[in-house]
Amino acid sequence: MADFRQIAILGVGLIGGSIGLAALKRKIADKVVGIGRNADRLARAQRHGCISEGTTDWQAGIREADLIVVCSPVESIIPLVEQLVPFCQPGTIITDAGSTKQTIIETLHASESVRCRKDVYFVGSHPMAGSDKSGADHAQADLFDNRVTIVTPAPETDRTAQANVRKFWESLGSRVLEMSPAEHDAAVAITSHLPHVMASLLAASTPESLLELTATGWADTTRVAAGDVELWRQIVSTNRGHVLQSLTNFEKLLAAFRASLEAGQDEHWIKLLEQGKHHRDIVGS
Amino acid sequence: MADFRQIAILGVGLIGGSIGLAALKRKIADKVVGIGRNADRLARAQRHGCISEGTTDWQAGIREADLIVVCSPVESIIPLVEQLVPFCQPGTIITDAGSTKQTIIETLHASESVRCRKDVYFVGSHPMAGSDKSGADHAQADLFDNRVTIVTPAPETDRTAQANVRKFWESLGSRVLEMSPAEHDAAVAITSHLPHVMASLLAASTPESLLELTATGWADTTRVAAGDVELWRQIVSTNRGHVLQSLTNFEKLLAAFRASLEAGQDEHWIKLLEQGKHHRDIVGS
Repeated sequence: MADFRQIAILGVGLIGGSIGLAALKRKIADKVVGIGRNADRLARAQRHGCISEGTTDWQAGIREADLIVVCSPVESIIPLVEQLVPFCQPGTIITDAGSTKQTIIETLHASESVRCRKDVYFVGSHPMAGSDKSGADHAQADLFDNRVTIVTPAPETDRTAQANVRKFWESLGSRVLEMSPAEHDAAVAITSHLPHVMASLLAASTPESLLELTATGWADTTRVAAGDVELWRQIVSTNRGHVLQSLTNFEKLLAAFRASLEAGQDEHWIKLLEQGKHHRDIVGS
Repeated sequence: MADFRQIAILGVGLIGGSIGLAALKRKIADKVVGIGRNADRLARAQRHGCISEGTTDWQAGIREADLIVVCSPVESIIPLVEQLVPFCQPGTIITDAGSTKQTIIETLHASESVRCRKDVYFVGSHPMAGSDKSGADHAQADLFDNRVTIVTPAPETDRTAQANVRKFWESLGSRVLEMSPAEHDAAVAITSHLPHVMASLLAASTPESLLELTATGWADTTRVAAGDVELWRQIVSTNRGHVLQSLTNFEKLLAAFRASLEAGQDEHWIKLLEQGKHHRDIVGS
């Protein structure tokens, strides 16, 4: 017997498609309905086995769902959930896959449309999985295997819904960690948003005439800079304070590196290279 | 008919092993002799097809060579070449695969032992190929295919030897660019050494407690930080001035990004993300 009767996925891209593929393969839901704006893309996702069926009519798509997973860009999550909630059946759980959490969760818990449905439960999630490829064409049933998903309960979060969302991600193969939305946003500013900004600035700072003199080191270090700029604009914008804090910390470290290199205090900057290697080796390939 | 009778490779690691593998496969040399300090490692490289034979006796190893390729860490290249030159047969060409060039080439051209052998020719090279794996076990015959190798002639460089070294790298599949040692060092400070430093500092600045919250973005951006610290110490040390210049330029860009993010002048930092994506897309996967 499946955990959910019907899962609705809003936004069937790499993440949404991989959730559907894994949920159907692992029989976590009897049915997965994909909701999107492009019927051709939905048809292709269906052929790939990511969804049981697709629809561009979101009201029809969510009508029978007992779990809704919103996989759209972070700035669209709040208006989408506010719009959906009045049409949900009683008991429906809504979660998301957004890369930032504090603004989304604070706004939704304060939202009139969400507050007046005591029988519909929002629980914030962030699966820490991804790829440099996008779209359901690159969906992988094992994308969440051994990957961390962060579930971010707030004081207003329903504890049963929280436990069910946790179980859902675990069923997809994830290791689930729970922390507050603010803790989440501070952590991912360091582990995800700062690396993205650095990759972008490295690529931006390389003169076009020198691009032919790059090798695998440059290619690896800047890989994520090829990501969708609008998606990253939304992530950085909605996590501005924490990203600024992580930049300030990084600037201090960089200044210390430069100063010791300049002064010939080699033991200082070598220690930083060693610490970097130590952390990188812990994470492994 | 092969281009060289016998190639001697000093240091049969990833680069040296791949040179031997490619040279033998493409019949660029009748024989490739690997020279190293560890007989077991040489025997393994021989079994992998990287070298025709191996020896720990460098004098014996270079005796019959008409091309010597020094693939050892940058700081060891100068003393090795100075030691080798008196024992070379007339007409021998020596090149290297070091990541920095100016110090090596200026020192060698000023060196007494090199200057008094007018019939032995040193030409600096830097194949821009690599891997995050090291050792001859990971050698690839196609490592240089479609990769740039920079050949760095100085005013003292023999033009015939320079043309032969160029042809040698082209025979291995490389696209060869020629520039002065100083131009080379300034360019790779930006395209290779700066990315390495950034990757190391990013990894170093991530608190150990947050490492489990990293995903593919962090993993890609910090990958090269796992590299051998001693090798990178030598590279950064021997290219200190250019690395400092590239750090200063990067610090300015980073400060501009942070200032515009802080001030809410979003169009400025978004433009930097767009420029980063543009450059990354030019390079491709």
